[in-house]
Amino acid sequence: MAAKNAFYAQSGGVTAVINASAAGVIETARQQTEKIGNIYAGRNGIIGALAEDLIDTGQDSAEAIRALRYTPSGAFGSCRYKLKSLEQNRREYERLIEVFKAHNIGYFFYNGGGDSADTCLKVSQLADTLGYPIQAIHVPKTVDNDLPITDCCPGYGSVAKYIAVSTLEASFDVASMSKTSTKVFVLEVMGRHAGWIAAAGALASTPDREIPIVILFPEIPFDKAKFLAKVDSNVRKFGYCSVVVSEGVKGEDGKFLSDQGVRDAFGHAQLGGVAPVVANIVKEGLGLKFHWGVADYLQRAARHIASKTDVEQAYAMGRAAVEFAVQGHNSVMPTIERVSDKPYKWKVGMAQLSKVANVEKMMPESFISEDGFGITDKCREYLAPLIEGEDYPPYTNGLPAYVRLKNVAVAKKLSDFTI
Amino acid sequence: MAAKNAFYAQSGGVTAVINASAAGVIETARQQTEKIGNIYAGRNGIIGALAEDLIDTGQDSAEAIRALRYTPSGAFGSCRYKLKSLEQNRREYERLIEVFKAHNIGYFFYNGGGDSADTCLKVSQLADTLGYPIQAIHVPKTVDNDLPITDCCPGYGSVAKYIAVSTLEASFDVASMSKTSTKVFVLEVMGRHAGWIAAAGALASTPDREIPIVILFPEIPFDKAKFLAKVDSNVRKFGYCSVVVSEGVKGEDGKFLSDQGVRDAFGHAQLGGVAPVVANIVKEGLGLKFHWGVADYLQRAARHIASKTDVEQAYAMGRAAVEFAVQGHNSVMPTIERVSDKPYKWKVGMAQLSKVANVEKMMPESFISEDGFGITDKCREYLAPLIEGEDYPPYTNGLPAYVRLKNVAVAKKLSDFTI
Repeated sequence: MAAKNAFYAQSGGVTAVINASAAGVIETARQQTEKIGNIYAGRNGIIGALAEDLIDTGQDSAEAIRALRYTPSGAFGSCRYKLKSLEQNRREYERLIEVFKAHNIGYFFYNGGGDSADTCLKVSQLADTLGYPIQAIHVPKTVDNDLPITDCCPGYGSVAKYIAVSTLEASFDVASMSKTSTKVFVLEVMGRHAGWIAAAGALASTPDREIPIVILFPEIPFDKAKFLAKVDSNVRKFGYCSVVVSEGVKGEDGKFLSDQGVRDAFGHAQLGGVAPVVANIVKEGLGLKFHWGVADYLQRAARHIASKTDVEQAYAMGRAAVEFAVQGHNSVMPTIERVSDKPYKWKVGMAQLSKVANVEKMMPESFISEDGFGITDKCREYLAPLIEGEDYPPYTNGLPAYVRLKNVAVAKKLSDFTI
Repeated sequence: MAAKNAFYAQSGGVTAVINASAAGVIETARQQTEKIGNIYAGRNGIIGALAEDLIDTGQDSAEAIRALRYTPSGAFGSCRYKLKSLEQNRREYERLIEVFKAHNIGYFFYNGGGDSADTCLKVSQLADTLGYPIQAIHVPKTVDNDLPITDCCPGYGSVAKYIAVSTLEASFDVASMSKTSTKVFVLEVMGRHAGWIAAAGALASTPDREIPIVILFPEIPFDKAKFLAKVDSNVRKFGYCSVVVSEGVKGEDGKFLSDQGVRDAFGHAQLGGVAPVVANIVKEGLGLKFHWGVADYLQRAARHIASKTDVEQAYAMGRAAVEFAVQGHNSVMPTIERVSDKPYKWKVGMAQLSKVANVEKMMPESFISEDGFGITDKCREYLAPLIEGEDYPPYTNGLPAYVRLKNVAVAKKLSDFTI
């Protein structure tokens, strides 16, 4: 069989390690010269395929591709764009096939979260639905850690490490100030529906270095009186208290504590600003001096403090995706299978995309402490290895030597397409 | 002369490296056995002296003191408490002398910023004003970089590095998302009156890796139309734009763009929340999708990404303070004197406290670009060496191995004192 070209694209919110997956895909595919020809990347995700805006990754040196391993964000551009169903938008699928045919693309690697898994699943079915033979493999990525089947999601471990380290550092700070000044520090973190990221804040407290941390999970309806009692009790005992609040926390009325009213292309509410709301509740309810921070993009872009476990897994997922493809698989996603907790061991598994797409993995009830403000030992055991190890990028003049690729466009062969 | 005991305390907002100065003081003082006896620390700054709440640092091992070098925050507790003048509150000065006498304290090391230099100056004059012989040395510290005479302030270089790295990372992130989603990222940083911290955001853009970054300095009145034009032009050219806004930015009416209305013990307005204000201006003025973050305590506690230059200088200031004391100096502060830019060389200098106290060093006009939204080459040359080098803390189980001292109290000898 003659070699087919490969298409790789990044989708949804980017992470500190999605480019490590890109490096895994490209470096592995470059070795598969018998089966894989050129490796194209979509400029700005699936938009690049629809617009026939392909990047020739072959123009970038082995050194530049290797540097993706320590460069955060999406090196080829990402997008928030979800393909509708074949019935709703047949035109887009026909365009994809037109572009794939024009550029002899037989492999489709899509690097994203739950919504992207859905897009990848639809592409994987093009042979059945529209008669175009293609192998589509999804490469898991999401800071939200909410993909099913896989034990964890590349991108999550590094955010978790960032939040744990930041909570530790800010807690040390507020503890120092608490005698005459700030007594409560509120940190807002990402997580629309699942509290995985907020949970990581709890890792900052360890048996030998106890820190009073209140976690507000989106899974637990916010109970103001109970929350104030918890903060008050911590401040009385320790002199201070840290609060890690998920952006997706809802009140008992089911409404987000803070909602800017803006919605993204997937129809998700764009959140932000729950930290000042919570800080104000503390101030009004307890009269305590507070500070608050909002980590926002800083948390998911923080490659400088990435988890080594996470970087290795992200790379391994990219590599496995290519291996699955050359083995002839279609409509699958490599997964991380936990083999043991102590010592932490894991291996690569495989999931059917149909079981991944549009399924959101919440925090198990058994991971949230009885009072709803912390994590259980079981959760701690699960989280601990995911933040293990440091994987520092190289530095030049005091700054990380993150790479920018050339991103040279492949010559277009088709007429324009309006997205 | 028989050895006298030493008193060391931390004051004002803590930093990622103030404990490195503490290590410098304690390790150096421990070697001066002929002149310095016990080394006491004030629990929660000068409050510890007034309350006779002294910590015996001798109870902590050499290893624990060494660990201070890589532990952020104030290991002994800090405070926001400014001594009034002798005329206004003679009672407090008499109490200080009472405590110093009771514990045979002849050296006073105060680690803080401009307000604390004023407290230290008053203590240094106790021999003249109240006849108690004491040598008071101020150890410079402030993330605001606004102390006069010294070329830079310990604490600043690490915040600058954190802001530069974070701006770089978040800019890479927003660039990835800009095609279909977020086009503007706004990061709020500290800096009430001086734009030193905001200026560091500009370091993220380098000639070989240009990034469109708009800096909003407190020194420059906010001009909405000009700001929107600048952001618009960046988004048109680059597809995205990052904004680093100082918490202290004021409108043309002289009022803070955002003011929670809370004031701290020094009478400073407690700020926070200008990022959402600026983001909203972008949304309303240009209709662009935005994200915003507030670094708050995260920036000044971020020992995990401290500048090596900063750590070394912080330690050196602590060491020099003790050396000055045993040489017989009083009412002085060690300073950092820049010897050359390239290669960066510096040495320890000495300033008279009377010239330091209550003087705030603003950004020189020559450091801010003509349009008011960036830094000049001269500023870049000044800033570059301050973020140079990494000085990672050791890690245990994925988290920095920050130390907590025993902080054993010295037995009280006096009656209580109401502060």
